[in-house]
Amino acid sequence: MIKHLFNISGGLAAMMLACTVQAASLDKEDLLVAEALRDNALKFSDAYNIVESLTVEVGPRLAGSEGDQRAVVWAQKKMQDLGFDRVYTEQIEVPRWLRGHAHAEVVAPFPQPLVVTSLGYGVGTPEGGLTAEIVEFADVAALAKVPANKLKGKIAFINKRMERTRTGEGYDTAVGGRSEGMRLAVKKGASALLLRSVGTDSDRFAHTGIMSMEGVENPVPALALSAPDANLLEAMLKRGKPVQVKLNIENARLIDGPSFNVIAEVTGREKPEEVVLIGAHLDSWDEGTGALDDGAGVAIVMEAARLIAELPQRPRRTLRVVLFGAEEIGLLGAKQYVQAHRDDLEKIIAVSESDFGAGKIWRFDTRIPQNKFAIADQMMQLLAPLGIKRGNNTSHGGPDSSVFVARGVPAFGLHQDGNDYFDYHHTPNDTLDKVNPESLRQNVAAWVVVSFLTAEMQGDLGRVTNAD
Amino acid sequence: MIKHLFNISGGLAAMMLACTVQAASLDKEDLLVAEALRDNALKFSDAYNIVESLTVEVGPRLAGSEGDQRAVVWAQKKMQDLGFDRVYTEQIEVPRWLRGHAHAEVVAPFPQPLVVTSLGYGVGTPEGGLTAEIVEFADVAALAKVPANKLKGKIAFINKRMERTRTGEGYDTAVGGRSEGMRLAVKKGASALLLRSVGTDSDRFAHTGIMSMEGVENPVPALALSAPDANLLEAMLKRGKPVQVKLNIENARLIDGPSFNVIAEVTGREKPEEVVLIGAHLDSWDEGTGALDDGAGVAIVMEAARLIAELPQRPRRTLRVVLFGAEEIGLLGAKQYVQAHRDDLEKIIAVSESDFGAGKIWRFDTRIPQNKFAIADQMMQLLAPLGIKRGNNTSHGGPDSSVFVARGVPAFGLHQDGNDYFDYHHTPNDTLDKVNPESLRQNVAAWVVVSFLTAEMQGDLGRVTNAD
Repeated sequence: MIKHLFNISGGLAAMMLACTVQAASLDKEDLLVAEALRDNALKFSDAYNIVESLTVEVGPRLAGSEGDQRAVVWAQKKMQDLGFDRVYTEQIEVPRWLRGHAHAEVVAPFPQPLVVTSLGYGVGTPEGGLTAEIVEFADVAALAKVPANKLKGKIAFINKRMERTRTGEGYDTAVGGRSEGMRLAVKKGASALLLRSVGTDSDRFAHTGIMSMEGVENPVPALALSAPDANLLEAMLKRGKPVQVKLNIENARLIDGPSFNVIAEVTGREKPEEVVLIGAHLDSWDEGTGALDDGAGVAIVMEAARLIAELPQRPRRTLRVVLFGAEEIGLLGAKQYVQAHRDDLEKIIAVSESDFGAGKIWRFDTRIPQNKFAIADQMMQLLAPLGIKRGNNTSHGGPDSSVFVARGVPAFGLHQDGNDYFDYHHTPNDTLDKVNPESLRQNVAAWVVVSFLTAEMQGDLGRVTNAD
Repeated sequence: MIKHLFNISGGLAAMMLACTVQAASLDKEDLLVAEALRDNALKFSDAYNIVESLTVEVGPRLAGSEGDQRAVVWAQKKMQDLGFDRVYTEQIEVPRWLRGHAHAEVVAPFPQPLVVTSLGYGVGTPEGGLTAEIVEFADVAALAKVPANKLKGKIAFINKRMERTRTGEGYDTAVGGRSEGMRLAVKKGASALLLRSVGTDSDRFAHTGIMSMEGVENPVPALALSAPDANLLEAMLKRGKPVQVKLNIENARLIDGPSFNVIAEVTGREKPEEVVLIGAHLDSWDEGTGALDDGAGVAIVMEAARLIAELPQRPRRTLRVVLFGAEEIGLLGAKQYVQAHRDDLEKIIAVSESDFGAGKIWRFDTRIPQNKFAIADQMMQLLAPLGIKRGNNTSHGGPDSSVFVARGVPAFGLHQDGNDYFDYHHTPNDTLDKVNPESLRQNVAAWVVVSFLTAEMQGDLGRVTNAD
């Protein structure tokens, strides 16, 4: 049980006064409970323990792999232990893939090995490997401009650097090389793609990730290079001689198989059929232990819901925690969830996801009708003391949430500081030591405020239309 | 040529005045030249270009490997291009080794892969690998206390953390696990050694390095674990169930072969037979490109000697740059150098080595007779403006230099800031991007002061006896 739940501070009393002079949409009493929840979460929440458990007891969990199956078992057990009213799974279907070795080396003019990793679901080389000259492109747009078949017998090398920002927006401009690079390389006749990793670190880790294979009949090997290795190729090319690279890559595409969305609920006391959906994704890439992506998110939303479940009474409507499967390989869990529940989407009052690592939350975005802005303003009164400022109303609520948002479901976006997120993203280096327990407590504090108030409020948030 | 070489600043004039009131052992004119050299080096030295060349055009260069042979060719060519009076090699004999794969995984209770690397010259597992329970030890001393054969059928896991310091002294207390761990594990009957990497980072790189194999008749596989992986094992063990690890390791010991010390000289104008020896080591470990260890040192001493060779006249005695071979695997180049030149050691006036990465120099140690301290004091007047403070008189001059020091050769120690050195040391992550060009300029500025003044001074530094 939460201690001092109704111990109203002077600060809170002042806030209540402030509330009375504006068009308040949330009840004062609910705001008091939310504030107490927040302060309790800041002091006592223990999401760290959950992400520790997931990374130590499960570790890597690529969709459809044995690790993924273990993660599903782990999640159900953990949610049962945490005392939710209902824990269940919904099966999804996923393509499966097994990473083999990835050896790369410069063979001329300066022989030395390179650190690379296969992009997700990529193919291997012919047995014995392939050797070809590399041709450098500043970015994916430059590759797109090359005439078809011009790269016959060459390896395309996309050498675009990603910018470090708090919002992670550098990802959006760099990730095209990963998602579209292989497809374009095939079009131009290249025998393989080498991509400077989509990441902000300068460590010798290559960043994997999914790529578009749609319409590609004869895929070629697609590899990310660590930043220091991309620097090496760049420096060799500057010396003016042809740079020959040998690749020896092995991967295996397995038959499709099952995975699961794992779901837990705190059942609403008045309108159990109405749902506030908070999510994260359970799957991870295969080379790290998925602590930041998305173990932290799993822990944050589970712990937030647990704290709400510890209140003396259930919130008015149902709080549903969904740990999506197969997010990394194309939001497959979310897409299949929305498809399976297409007739119930009206009952989802709001959606949000935690999937940007373990940094502190600094911005609160929304996607709600304009006539509901007062609700966000009231939430902000409880979020501001956590160092959070009001953002915009164009939130997609997180990767999996975006599938719901596309169907008009209102969304909240609790933005984490992503300055170092892309140092570790999709690398073997995504491990527990990068997670700060104090930052997680701040996250949970923000999530209980938004989750509880949305589940408890009298009215709902309507639907978002293009006019909003 | 150096510009403004004799353009005496007001500050220097004041310093000269200061010199006259103490027992000066160095000539004022020489100090002026040294100051001009220093200021020129700070502005115009380009050691970065040399380490860039070595890492891009050669890369990894484990003693006796093809990369090592290429490094020897590279070094001779580069030294000739830099305009030394004499460039030559001296052959040494080295044991050779080839790293194969190193797969490790926890098989129970929580199956997941581990990132490991073989310690240098280590053996592989039997074909098909070996699986055994791990037994944790706080440090090598704890392992030493176990009764003989007590670890039959187990894997010893040494879980000692290394402390981060500017001097790197944390290395001295942690490295015993690497140098003595395998030998002790064999004594206790263990089937393998797992060692928390001797390093200060929390990245998923394992740190390799040499270990003592002396008197070990039946070596067992010896592996370093990355810090996050050591954390994983620690967390699993805390849960109280036996932790089973499977190792599949392949390495090959090759027949001994040649390597080389590569040597360049600026020939002394008056006493060419007397030598000031400044060194670094040319070999590196095999997984990084050896930018910090010891490409930076190679570049610093080469560039310092080049700047001295650009003076209007040669210094009084010979300045000899020695790029030692096979330092990493037991100071073999230095040992064979001292053996081959055992009758000429008296002619080596002083020795020093740059082998601690690319951080700025912050301390000036010596190992000189007490009656020569005034010389160090005068050097300090030129070093202090670089942010360098006077250290002690117990310097060993660097790893290779220590072999000379053991024979009584005086030594200088220009200590670099090593706060982050052990983040990268002996890992794949020892790459050029970790080298700061500005820090290298400060290094070269300090090295020209000490090297030039020692080569130019009227008297010498005598020999160091136990009384000093």
